[in-house]
Amino acid sequence: MIDFYELAGSDPAIRFSSYCWRIRMALAHKGVNARLIGWHFGDKRLPGGNTTVPVLVDDGDVIGGSTEIAIYLDQQYAEGPSLFGDETSLAHARFIIAWTDTVLQPALFPLIAADIFKLVKPTAQAYYRETREQRLGTTLEKAQASRGQALPAVRALMQPLRTVVETEAFLGGDEPSYADYAVFGAFQWFRVASSFGLLSEDDPVHAWQERMLELFDGLAAEAKIAS
Amino acid sequence: MIDFYELAGSDPAIRFSSYCWRIRMALAHKGVNARLIGWHFGDKRLPGGNTTVPVLVDDGDVIGGSTEIAIYLDQQYAEGPSLFGDETSLAHARFIIAWTDTVLQPALFPLIAADIFKLVKPTAQAYYRETREQRLGTTLEKAQASRGQALPAVRALMQPLRTVVETEAFLGGDEPSYADYAVFGAFQWFRVASSFGLLSEDDPVHAWQERMLELFDGLAAEAKIAS
Repeated sequence: MIDFYELAGSDPAIRFSSYCWRIRMALAHKGVNARLIGWHFGDKRLPGGNTTVPVLVDDGDVIGGSTEIAIYLDQQYAEGPSLFGDETSLAHARFIIAWTDTVLQPALFPLIAADIFKLVKPTAQAYYRETREQRLGTTLEKAQASRGQALPAVRALMQPLRTVVETEAFLGGDEPSYADYAVFGAFQWFRVASSFGLLSEDDPVHAWQERMLELFDGLAAEAKIAS
Repeated sequence: MIDFYELAGSDPAIRFSSYCWRIRMALAHKGVNARLIGWHFGDKRLPGGNTTVPVLVDDGDVIGGSTEIAIYLDQQYAEGPSLFGDETSLAHARFIIAWTDTVLQPALFPLIAADIFKLVKPTAQAYYRETREQRLGTTLEKAQASRGQALPAVRALMQPLRTVVETEAFLGGDEPSYADYAVFGAFQWFRVASSFGLLSEDDPVHAWQERMLELFDGLAAEAKIAS
């Protein structure tokens, strides 16, 4: 049995971590079942000395870190459809993952910083506010209040993604790949936490997001979102 | 015989187009020889009705556009080492190409706008100044004058590239791929036009650039640069 530890909200049915969504999608892609275990900031019961999620425990093996887990799944469950393709593709996927981590997510975060706060378990709210306000250099509420002005620049920086999904169904081409799940994790994090209109409906990125939401019988579409 | 039309400077030995350098590297990767034909802004003798370089003419077939030429070379000369790898890798490469076109090159251009002007053939300088100043929203000289202040942000936006080449030799992994040539074209364009110090020597991007310069017996290292 595989145990998958992922970030849970105050409402334990709400799973909002971008990094954990990458693996939820990757598990479905590989056709691998896992028991989902909710974890909160500050909880101390992660296996293998890990201090943050996602963590995967497979028959005693403990793997932490989303990219490491995805590579493990691709190697260990090689009979399922590949997440990464060939060696070139894996190296290219690292670029798209790094873009997600260092460009997309930092740009999205201020837009939902206060919305996410509302999802966090009360006992973890002080930790969340302190660490995130330090990162933002302002309060959660002030960061989020200017999201209307920030939106055009945020949409503009999605251009590399937009260029590809204008002509391809997925970042993996005809089929979704781990790079799709890495980028989609950020959109799902945003979508679960906030009803703010991030994408215009005529944006090719919006159409790609819809395709991603429909994968695996609507796995991501049916996830519980903040009310 | 293959003819390859590429942008030439007032000094015809100076070849400075980022898009043309992508293909010079791709031709070497595939082991395909081509006759190099210099072209200047405003010249009207491109085959196939193309209005800009690069253009490749292979036994009567005319292909314009760097990505289109690279895909043609990979299909037509399939016996040489692959430029793109599998279908996933090609789709991922499109992301890296789009990042180069829409993020990296527009950020680099103001830093060398006036340096490039000096390379352009005198009869094309008026065209170059008018079109590029319209794009920049300021004069070539003013754009370039603030490059010292712009540098930290330009270096920061290279982070996705930096993250990969910190642990991988190339964006293609152990071997260079077309994605490497696409990004490197921008660095070679910069390097041929300007002696401005774009990268600090301890930057992993600098080490990657050195590896790229050494490929194919120093093809890019030995290119003539502006004096």
